[in-house]
Amino acid sequence: MRVMGIDPGIALVGFGIIDSIGNRLVPVQYGCIETEAGTPHDIRLKQVYEAAGALMDKYKPDAAAIEKLFFNRNVTTAFTVSEARGVIVLAAAQRGIAVAEYTPMQVKQAIVGYGKAEKRQVQEMTRMFLNLPAVPKPDDTADALAVAVCHAHFAVLLNRMNGVNRT
Amino acid sequence: MRVMGIDPGIALVGFGIIDSIGNRLVPVQYGCIETEAGTPHDIRLKQVYEAAGALMDKYKPDAAAIEKLFFNRNVTTAFTVSEARGVIVLAAAQRGIAVAEYTPMQVKQAIVGYGKAEKRQVQEMTRMFLNLPAVPKPDDTADALAVAVCHAHFAVLLNRMNGVNRT
Repeated sequence: MRVMGIDPGIALVGFGIIDSIGNRLVPVQYGCIETEAGTPHDIRLKQVYEAAGALMDKYKPDAAAIEKLFFNRNVTTAFTVSEARGVIVLAAAQRGIAVAEYTPMQVKQAIVGYGKAEKRQVQEMTRMFLNLPAVPKPDDTADALAVAVCHAHFAVLLNRMNGVNRT
Repeated sequence: MRVMGIDPGIALVGFGIIDSIGNRLVPVQYGCIETEAGTPHDIRLKQVYEAAGALMDKYKPDAAAIEKLFFNRNVTTAFTVSEARGVIVLAAAQRGIAVAEYTPMQVKQAIVGYGKAEKRQVQEMTRMFLNLPAVPKPDDTADALAVAVCHAHFAVLLNRMNGVNRT
């Protein structure tokens, strides 16, 4: 199963694509979609939509996983992130890719086994699961990989519970 | 100038399309895009995106106007509305339609002349400006028409300031 993890935003959208093969997790591609400051907001949304869609077309993930927004002190930022999230979910829906949502606590629980784990612990465990030489930069990329690993863990668990042996 | 006012949401998207001809405002079409409760969230976003785009293709507005979100006690609702807003702004950007944003206070100021006016006052003044027999229902439709009227007022003002006599 191929999972695309996404950390949404308007300036930076982290993405992390991984394959879950039996008990192994293999990184396929990861990085950031970037849009330029000063570009009109609607054009940035269009750029995010097009770049996310192009990645989906290229890597053909079976599923997408995205962090559920939680309360943010900066409400304006949270609204902007939600708009970016909307166009990414749209790009997935148009391709029939199911989008799973996880709260930051669920991501931490799935990766570190502790819902209040530190960000650095999550990044280090994600690095280990994926056998990467270093934690990817920027944080947006690392966070996107973490939510992808989270989804892969949940999917393996669900498959076991259903008695399915999926590779 | 033709303006499409939009009141975004995931269950109901109000829209109000008006023509600004000299000093007159003429309603062209108004109503609500509806999506069914129980439909997966990503599919509802896709339905909103497609229906909004279809209205833009049919009525070819020169500009779109949408309410800027403000802090909402129900943060989950605000995030969902932002996602819907994102796909509507995307639909406009893909058609080269500029999207203007107004805060609720700006809408009230433009229509009633008082930024803290009551909702009913705004609706009644909008009805009068558009020479409608009654305030359109539901509120989403009335709010969309109000933001369209707000934009038409600002546009007339800007044109006057620029010495342009646009019809």
